[in-house]
Amino acid sequence: MKLKISKKDLSKHISIVQKAISTRTTMQILEGILLKAKDNILTLIASDTEITIKTSVSALVLEEGEIVINSRLFGDIIRKLPDETIDIEVASTNMNIKCLNSEFNIQCQVSDEFPDLPRIDEIVNVSIKAFDFKEAIRKTSFAVSFDETRVAFTGVLMDIKEDEINFVALDGFRLALKKLRTQTNQSISSIIPARSLNELIKIIENEEAIDITIGNNSIRFNLDNTVFYTTLLSGEFFKYEGLIRENHSTIVQIDKNKFQNALERASLLAKEDKANLVKLNVGESEIEITSNSEIGNVEEFVDSEVEGEELKIAFNSKYLLEGIKIIESEKIILNFTDSINPCIIQEDEDEDYIYLVLPVRLAN
Amino acid sequence: MKLKISKKDLSKHISIVQKAISTRTTMQILEGILLKAKDNILTLIASDTEITIKTSVSALVLEEGEIVINSRLFGDIIRKLPDETIDIEVASTNMNIKCLNSEFNIQCQVSDEFPDLPRIDEIVNVSIKAFDFKEAIRKTSFAVSFDETRVAFTGVLMDIKEDEINFVALDGFRLALKKLRTQTNQSISSIIPARSLNELIKIIENEEAIDITIGNNSIRFNLDNTVFYTTLLSGEFFKYEGLIRENHSTIVQIDKNKFQNALERASLLAKEDKANLVKLNVGESEIEITSNSEIGNVEEFVDSEVEGEELKIAFNSKYLLEGIKIIESEKIILNFTDSINPCIIQEDEDEDYIYLVLPVRLAN
Repeated sequence: MKLKISKKDLSKHISIVQKAISTRTTMQILEGILLKAKDNILTLIASDTEITIKTSVSALVLEEGEIVINSRLFGDIIRKLPDETIDIEVASTNMNIKCLNSEFNIQCQVSDEFPDLPRIDEIVNVSIKAFDFKEAIRKTSFAVSFDETRVAFTGVLMDIKEDEINFVALDGFRLALKKLRTQTNQSISSIIPARSLNELIKIIENEEAIDITIGNNSIRFNLDNTVFYTTLLSGEFFKYEGLIRENHSTIVQIDKNKFQNALERASLLAKEDKANLVKLNVGESEIEITSNSEIGNVEEFVDSEVEGEELKIAFNSKYLLEGIKIIESEKIILNFTDSINPCIIQEDEDEDYIYLVLPVRLAN
Repeated sequence: MKLKISKKDLSKHISIVQKAISTRTTMQILEGILLKAKDNILTLIASDTEITIKTSVSALVLEEGEIVINSRLFGDIIRKLPDETIDIEVASTNMNIKCLNSEFNIQCQVSDEFPDLPRIDEIVNVSIKAFDFKEAIRKTSFAVSFDETRVAFTGVLMDIKEDEINFVALDGFRLALKKLRTQTNQSISSIIPARSLNELIKIIENEEAIDITIGNNSIRFNLDNTVFYTTLLSGEFFKYEGLIRENHSTIVQIDKNKFQNALERASLLAKEDKANLVKLNVGESEIEITSNSEIGNVEEFVDSEVEGEELKIAFNSKYLLEGIKIIESEKIILNFTDSINPCIIQEDEDEDYIYLVLPVRLAN
């Protein structure tokens, strides 16, 4: 293998595949990046067995070849080289790296043991606008469970229907749902590990659309120069649609920032107790937020437009706040039924996003 | 106690005294800030028994008083309030905090148990330009030892002489010395904990000069609105002046950034071994840097102006790099005697800063 490549290009593509490198792998070969040079393309592949990333970059390939090099060391070296052309030459398992006045020789591994790319038994293929996809993941993936005993809930459900795709995450205390209206003419649902999705959205850049191929056990996302694979989670997902009521007895429109700031202040005292408890008293034209702990109490008032009945309800402030923080609109809508049914939070301008949070039942 | 104060002012001064709050204190009263309101001044005091900080800020004091409030909670509440006037009123041990639509009641502690400010048995008083003082600390304190069994070396020596003050830190592998030329007409040396100094320089802002009062066991730094106390370290400091040779057989002038970058790259391989070993080969017009470990080797060349004899010498790259990184000048001077005596690194324009690093002796 022998090639010339720009430092900036190589450095960027190393960072992309490094998203699939685990620091806790027990397989030494997976601490490495598989490099393949051919037809003036350098391909980089890395995998932690759950996530696999393959990315390609132009290079002047003078001699074809394949080799596996330690990811951390290779990345550190390339990033610290000057912004010039780098010469790479592999002889047997030695990689020689030259750039201006720097020369490295690094011991590599042969590529034979490196795992193959996941085989996708293609079932369904859909295309989603990159912007919509990133937003859907950002607005749902934070709500997954971290409880590894219920592994299906550590993922985001991608529920593909004929004319919409629902992204859903929940953990037993709250649920986040983002609906994308798009004609798919398909029907399939898959549970994608939240960790994988969070890595994936970091490497989406200027893509217009993402091509998604869904198999039985794995899913593939095609970006412009990068292919991202992840295993799917098995298990039954929650029947989320039954949870979302359409009729509400109290509907509140409130300034997002004012409500968030007041809740954050109130939760300073709520945090002192384990329950993180904040109480909302929804009045005619304002919400009163109260919280108390051994060390003191707090009372906050936030102006709001209230339609319907007055209501007292209590929440774990953490779950309420996480949903409000993710919203970008100036105003938000809070939909209540009563003090024991979930509150549904929506953006003022976007009815396709729903954040549902369960209240805490108070003794009397 | 009853007062009105601007949120911004109060928030800023809480941050100042919080530098003296330890998260690991066993005395509950020291988790608090002592507040004293009198004569339209609010004074805040905090202490971790080593560092004590007292700071004062204008307020509209309607009723005098003293109280101790939990530092973390008080800081979090004030910082999260809107940028408006805050009303504080203390009745018995309850503090009522009001600001626009927010109202807190916080349980406080009486001030009786809060420790008194340290008494300084004044021995010596000097004044140092704030800018010079900050620079002297920044350029020396990183070089102290973290070995708590030799406690004197965990501090920075402030060695006051008739016409200069030397700030010195060392850890057995390297030494950093900054000389301030100033007429003091005094002679005393004190060892100040590096941790205290690092907190102190964070709160120096627009001060012209810092007034320093040195006692037997404590030292006091007077800033504009803030007084910073710290205990001194006892024990014998190293007789540092004998270490610094004046005659060198090899003197190298080298570009600081190029040398630093080359050393950083070389140390990527050095890091793989415990010794962090990099070898320098000082030639006629360049320095060759090499390093090797099980996984590979590296060779770097950096152009330089060399006066005197050629030389081979080895260092722990960590100690070499830390000294070079702290330097801001474009060129640096490396002074060598031979391969077993220290290298003295200086800035091109500032002969009053010395960074001395011991080489690693190689088995021929």
